[in-house]
Amino acid sequence: MKALVYNGPGKIELKQVPKPVIEKQTDALVKIIKTTICGTDLGILHGKTPTVKSGTTLGHEGIGIVEEVGTSVTNFKKGDHVIISCITSDGTCEYCKKQLYSHCEDGGWILGHLINGTQAEYVRIPHANNSLYLIPPNVDEEALVMLSDILPTGFEIGVIAGNVKPGDTIAIVGAGPIGMAALLTAQFYSPAKIYMIDVDDNRLKMSKKFGATHTINSGSEDAIKRIMAETKDGVDVAIEAVGIPATFDICQKIVRPGGNLANIGVHGKPVNLQIQDLWIQNITITMGLVNTNTTSMLLKTVTSGKLNPKKLITHHFQLDDILIAYKVFGNAAKEKALKVIIEP
Amino acid sequence: MKALVYNGPGKIELKQVPKPVIEKQTDALVKIIKTTICGTDLGILHGKTPTVKSGTTLGHEGIGIVEEVGTSVTNFKKGDHVIISCITSDGTCEYCKKQLYSHCEDGGWILGHLINGTQAEYVRIPHANNSLYLIPPNVDEEALVMLSDILPTGFEIGVIAGNVKPGDTIAIVGAGPIGMAALLTAQFYSPAKIYMIDVDDNRLKMSKKFGATHTINSGSEDAIKRIMAETKDGVDVAIEAVGIPATFDICQKIVRPGGNLANIGVHGKPVNLQIQDLWIQNITITMGLVNTNTTSMLLKTVTSGKLNPKKLITHHFQLDDILIAYKVFGNAAKEKALKVIIEP
Repeated sequence: MKALVYNGPGKIELKQVPKPVIEKQTDALVKIIKTTICGTDLGILHGKTPTVKSGTTLGHEGIGIVEEVGTSVTNFKKGDHVIISCITSDGTCEYCKKQLYSHCEDGGWILGHLINGTQAEYVRIPHANNSLYLIPPNVDEEALVMLSDILPTGFEIGVIAGNVKPGDTIAIVGAGPIGMAALLTAQFYSPAKIYMIDVDDNRLKMSKKFGATHTINSGSEDAIKRIMAETKDGVDVAIEAVGIPATFDICQKIVRPGGNLANIGVHGKPVNLQIQDLWIQNITITMGLVNTNTTSMLLKTVTSGKLNPKKLITHHFQLDDILIAYKVFGNAAKEKALKVIIEP
Repeated sequence: MKALVYNGPGKIELKQVPKPVIEKQTDALVKIIKTTICGTDLGILHGKTPTVKSGTTLGHEGIGIVEEVGTSVTNFKKGDHVIISCITSDGTCEYCKKQLYSHCEDGGWILGHLINGTQAEYVRIPHANNSLYLIPPNVDEEALVMLSDILPTGFEIGVIAGNVKPGDTIAIVGAGPIGMAALLTAQFYSPAKIYMIDVDDNRLKMSKKFGATHTINSGSEDAIKRIMAETKDGVDVAIEAVGIPATFDICQKIVRPGGNLANIGVHGKPVNLQIQDLWIQNITITMGLVNTNTTSMLLKTVTSGKLNPKKLITHHFQLDDILIAYKVFGNAAKEKALKVIIEP
């Protein structure tokens, strides 16, 4: 079968590899219908994730059709259409019993990381009972690719961890796919004002369409100054959706006493926490990898029409053109790209 | 009357000052029975709190007898014995309605900071209805001085914010008065193991008597290494009770995935948050000034015998000897001092 294989920093290749097989009785073999590229995949490509070995098929998102299941897989059968969760979890370890699936002792984020992933024609899914979600009939399946990672990440690590409440003033720093996922799902809780902060005007314009009430281009305007001037004493919730010191810094300087700073960004270096000012502010800072424990909840919001993740999809490619897709996604702001769909 | 007055960095003086009077109808005038010195007072003395003006009477803790009340004070009358809360709160502003009394728009920490404090024969307490607590009969009143600040601080900002749960393994970094207050109140929630970390063997020995199950002298042993070796993957809750980068650093390196880092320490400079390692760990970091919203709760634990704050009191002085008391408290480890009681 064809698969997008990582060959070390800077090197990816679409090539023929053996089709995966059931290795354990808890596995399922899934034929990919659609997959996508994540910022994390770009990180791997740039050599930021040394735990990924050369020869690994990338990708941890997608929807597919169950082709075969091990004898222990009771929740799915051949022919089922499924969402593949980016997090694999056995459902039985100490962390899983706390719904900290991201820290599953026999799983976590392993797809396209420690084992072969979804940017291929087929993928082997360990612990399938707990790591796949059945797609109900009569749903736009393509939209559900956003439920593998991006929407639960924005929702769990940004909105829920940040404790967004009705009437709140919130700020989301970073209007890329993850920031947009936080923007869409924050609206479940009816905040009064949503500031979207980014350096790209096109993304800010899109965020207005997605429900932002205020936008700030932090490349041309002092975001901290403006927010402190327009709010009583900062925002109730600041959501960091980039992963660099500068954006974390904006967040720590705009969060009001008693507020929340929810970090979603994947960081490559330490940040300078201004605790000499913040210790007295009664703030809560959260960070983490998505648990995908809200996937079923989000699926209901999609099927009921409360959430339309399709908005996040800007480009389509065939698997044969995945190297072009990586280029477009790697240059997302210029290409006006959010999420790209790839079909084998 | 006599009062301990701050005269600028490094200078304090016991001197005669005018006795305070009722200034607003929400004030109470309280005759001090006992007061104490806080680490924050030492900070002021060392010039760390420039908002304190020369001529201010220090102190924000104590118990006393109501001498006079303004016409709007309905909860207290002349002759009532009261605990003075270190936090003044009007009970009616937006922050007070969220029980964030520490950020009261007409209060917060003002005693011995922005207005004259309790290290004197008398003190004026603004918003007395919400800022004093009635002492019930037949209680050892001296122990209740610990309820002005130290016990609610350790409890609210360490134990409650840190979400200490039955069966947890927790670590408290800093075995000074605040760390000890966290140690005593953490035991309400029955953690399985309590590590106490400090550089002073005497304090560690005391912490064992107060309920610590394990102690580590981080001056002579690598606390991080030992905890990571003795626990599965770190502690459920790390409580920072010092306020310097080195102790914050221990906390961020021993907290397990899904755990809490509760910072109580008052910091003077930024800390290097190792977010490149922590972003994926699903941790929660909290920090803040005490709200004293648990004072009534703690009072019940004292009157019922569940908590004996008297353990924290090591020294007694007359107000006339308060300069000696400052010296002893300023050299606390050597003097084997935790809290010192001062009586006018």
